[in-house]
Amino acid sequence: MTRERIYLFDTTLRDGQQTPGVDFSVDDKIAIASLLDDFGIDYVEGGYPGANPTDTAFFSKKRTRKAAFVAFGMTRRPGVSAANDPGLASLVQSQADALCLVAKSWDYHVTVALGTTPEENLAGIRDSVEAVLKSGKQAMIDCEHFFDGYKANPDYALACVKTAHEAGARWVVLCDTNGGSQPAEIARIVSDVIAAGVPGTCLGIHAHNDTGQAVANSLAAIDAGARQIQGTLNGIGERCGNANLVTIVPTLVLKDYYRTRFETGVTEEKLAGLTELSRAFDEILNRAPYHQSPYVGASAFATKAGIHASALLKDPRTYEHVPPESVGNFRSVMVSDQGGRSNFLNALKRRGIAVAKDDPRLDRLIATVKEREAEGYAYEGADASFELLARRTFGTIPDFFRVEGFRVMVERRFDALGRPKTVSEAVVKLEIEGKTILSVAEGDGPVNALDLALRKDFGVFQQEIADLELTDYKVRILNGGTGAVTRVLIESGDSGGRRWTTVGVSENIIDASFQALSDSILYKVMKNRGLAGVGA
Amino acid sequence: MTRERIYLFDTTLRDGQQTPGVDFSVDDKIAIASLLDDFGIDYVEGGYPGANPTDTAFFSKKRTRKAAFVAFGMTRRPGVSAANDPGLASLVQSQADALCLVAKSWDYHVTVALGTTPEENLAGIRDSVEAVLKSGKQAMIDCEHFFDGYKANPDYALACVKTAHEAGARWVVLCDTNGGSQPAEIARIVSDVIAAGVPGTCLGIHAHNDTGQAVANSLAAIDAGARQIQGTLNGIGERCGNANLVTIVPTLVLKDYYRTRFETGVTEEKLAGLTELSRAFDEILNRAPYHQSPYVGASAFATKAGIHASALLKDPRTYEHVPPESVGNFRSVMVSDQGGRSNFLNALKRRGIAVAKDDPRLDRLIATVKEREAEGYAYEGADASFELLARRTFGTIPDFFRVEGFRVMVERRFDALGRPKTVSEAVVKLEIEGKTILSVAEGDGPVNALDLALRKDFGVFQQEIADLELTDYKVRILNGGTGAVTRVLIESGDSGGRRWTTVGVSENIIDASFQALSDSILYKVMKNRGLAGVGA
Repeated sequence: MTRERIYLFDTTLRDGQQTPGVDFSVDDKIAIASLLDDFGIDYVEGGYPGANPTDTAFFSKKRTRKAAFVAFGMTRRPGVSAANDPGLASLVQSQADALCLVAKSWDYHVTVALGTTPEENLAGIRDSVEAVLKSGKQAMIDCEHFFDGYKANPDYALACVKTAHEAGARWVVLCDTNGGSQPAEIARIVSDVIAAGVPGTCLGIHAHNDTGQAVANSLAAIDAGARQIQGTLNGIGERCGNANLVTIVPTLVLKDYYRTRFETGVTEEKLAGLTELSRAFDEILNRAPYHQSPYVGASAFATKAGIHASALLKDPRTYEHVPPESVGNFRSVMVSDQGGRSNFLNALKRRGIAVAKDDPRLDRLIATVKEREAEGYAYEGADASFELLARRTFGTIPDFFRVEGFRVMVERRFDALGRPKTVSEAVVKLEIEGKTILSVAEGDGPVNALDLALRKDFGVFQQEIADLELTDYKVRILNGGTGAVTRVLIESGDSGGRRWTTVGVSENIIDASFQALSDSILYKVMKNRGLAGVGA
Repeated sequence: MTRERIYLFDTTLRDGQQTPGVDFSVDDKIAIASLLDDFGIDYVEGGYPGANPTDTAFFSKKRTRKAAFVAFGMTRRPGVSAANDPGLASLVQSQADALCLVAKSWDYHVTVALGTTPEENLAGIRDSVEAVLKSGKQAMIDCEHFFDGYKANPDYALACVKTAHEAGARWVVLCDTNGGSQPAEIARIVSDVIAAGVPGTCLGIHAHNDTGQAVANSLAAIDAGARQIQGTLNGIGERCGNANLVTIVPTLVLKDYYRTRFETGVTEEKLAGLTELSRAFDEILNRAPYHQSPYVGASAFATKAGIHASALLKDPRTYEHVPPESVGNFRSVMVSDQGGRSNFLNALKRRGIAVAKDDPRLDRLIATVKEREAEGYAYEGADASFELLARRTFGTIPDFFRVEGFRVMVERRFDALGRPKTVSEAVVKLEIEGKTILSVAEGDGPVNALDLALRKDFGVFQQEIADLELTDYKVRILNGGTGAVTRVLIESGDSGGRRWTTVGVSENIIDASFQALSDSILYKVMKNRGLAGVGA
């Protein structure tokens, strides 16, 4: 049986940007578009060029390789020709492959919100689609409030869809803008639209999670015949979020109910990177991954119940609806599982550290990592700190330098004009090759001061750490309150173009930062000598 | 048209206890049972008496007034009579009104996990139901792995359901134990069971969220004829959680698709306490409420987009699928750099600040917010700092206190045994009512030390800030490198139960933290006097 193709449309960079607290930079958008493109998403909607400087800059270049690069905008304004609409003009001039234009499809909104006639709105849809096609780009129409509009006036809502389709739109996307519709309603209405003559292969679904049904509504539309799903990474979006593609994609690829009938652009191999994709995105948002997320959460394959755990050991399928490795996640119950051991052996091998399977130091390393991760360390995101810990366990790190101590002071003073000014100063005491070195520096903040003091005089190594550069600094508070544990991740780079990440954890943010800073310098010195960073 | 009754069965205290990190005390259970009982839940499952001391103690008394009090357990063991099964005996002797017994319904599990015959398993179901009825309690059977079992061997799975029903069980609950089934499968299988002669009025559904479909699966079972839903508060539970009753109940009560056909024990009046119920439960769990939760999340009725926000003000139904007050939540149009003039007017009005549309101070406030948001402030997530900024602009903040300066010192020292130890100390100098106050404190880190020093002696206000508590602390680095700009968000609360958030931004993390800390105290002092936090 040939399987039908489902098209995946990601709107993380456009509708996802409506999430409270989310505000992507151009660099964030470039990084996220590349993750989506690589994963196998068909359409990456990047934003609204012309609406703000970030999106305009983002659309100055094509940002995807395989995926169609989509710009969002509005159909032409009432009473203006498509050619004379400045918004539409800047969309047409962008480097997008396709344009997705939002149009009203509820007659009440057309008259009240747009202040125009239902007929002029239909003409606007037709003209806008034609203008997009003339520019050589693919055209899509997002029908805003489609389901609520259909419930109020099915004929008019249908007329909007048909007008867009007949004008040549590749996709007409049916939006449940308020997120209040139920799956059975979505299924019935999508079936009605198809019965009215618009093929399901031209229909998309855009669902919101206001009743916890965004995933169900998206899949109900597919069951009814729609063939494009719009959603976001980790379900971010306005109010309760958009349909979560990180949940929908594995269901489509892995569940018999769907896999036997449909295929997507995401291969099983790419799907094994799903957990990493989801976490990488949270990392960009600088927020903690949600443990209970379907498929990718840290708890998604975790078992606590005694009876369940022992049944799970007998036969994992008993309590696992899919194999965790199919989405790049891990089963977590067994304390001394063989899978963990071979994971470690592989991780070491990749870093050029050859260890015998029965080396007792391997057990010590596994125990140390588990213990430190329980304290808050995250070695999966800190490759260099993991490598240093491993090499320290296997006894292959020379004593290049020793930190005798440090002191950081932050003071709010007043300048000559009585204006407050906050000054940071750090003192670091090192011992290198028997010599004590005391350095002091001022910085923009306490961590910057500490970094400058630490690297001000590094004795015999000063020359060779000159090209070390800190490229990113991230802080995460691991539990509530100002007395909580802090995790600091520092990304460094050098003129060789290689980058590495180190981690520090402490109740004290300065202390955590210092651990990560000094690990980074140690790694650099090791790397210069071919003692670290030699793996793949 | 008479509406059919849907029965709500809460398993927060039993299946919810399987959530990683959740471990209820007897007092927790008493408090939660009372919340559920009061809300209008029909069945409150309290745990497994006999399995652990907490549950045994909890079941030593009846803990509900209106709701049926349910104990969980297992059907009799193979080869033992019901009367001679000690587990069943302690259930029968508990103060529960009803017993819910789990039974295998997948023949593979019967032979492999239980090690008995399919026939003996059926006999066990029959005998156990009869023993429960003889004790005068209501009997329910949870069919574990029912949907997977039905897919593998429909006849045997059906035989389990029919045996329980014919023996007199009030409810037979169909469990999607692994959480992997899709709504269309659930609907088909529930229909099959009803077609086989077991009335839907005796069937329950127990769904897990492993594919993000727990809500949809529960409601699909209702659509197919089942009449009892098992779920938990805020969807807690093993792996990805159980069906979330906090999402399902408002959908049943408010959505036309369900309200026209069904009724529950939750009145519209009780539903208006839903947000409070959800937050009270998070409070017991000591975790921050999830902002994007359907219906009850802080973001569930929040709008950021400029165009949406102005449409929302014209007609709330445009972007709200239900009125926020129907679930005890609030509309929130967030102030952000995307917001226009009408957003600001509305935001001020909601905070009890009446401003004329043409007040020139309004322009100054908008300009200040835009400028500060460009520097990295995020007022949409910091309601209290926004209100202080607004009141400052409108000239209504008295000089309660003045910060003359502060100094923070972090030092890594060595203790008597030569072990490194990092010590943080802060000094704060305040002026309150003409008096200079100098305080010093040590803390777990520099921010904690600063917080302790700042609140150590607050002069005439000391008494009234005693109940101020920091409930969350978040740090975001706004661009790469240790010299980057840092944004700190601090959430505070007091004994009145109200929470507020303040923001600070600086190149210096200590400085940013100090801004947010002192804003929080100022807000608290204002609030105590009815000068802030007076809005809806």
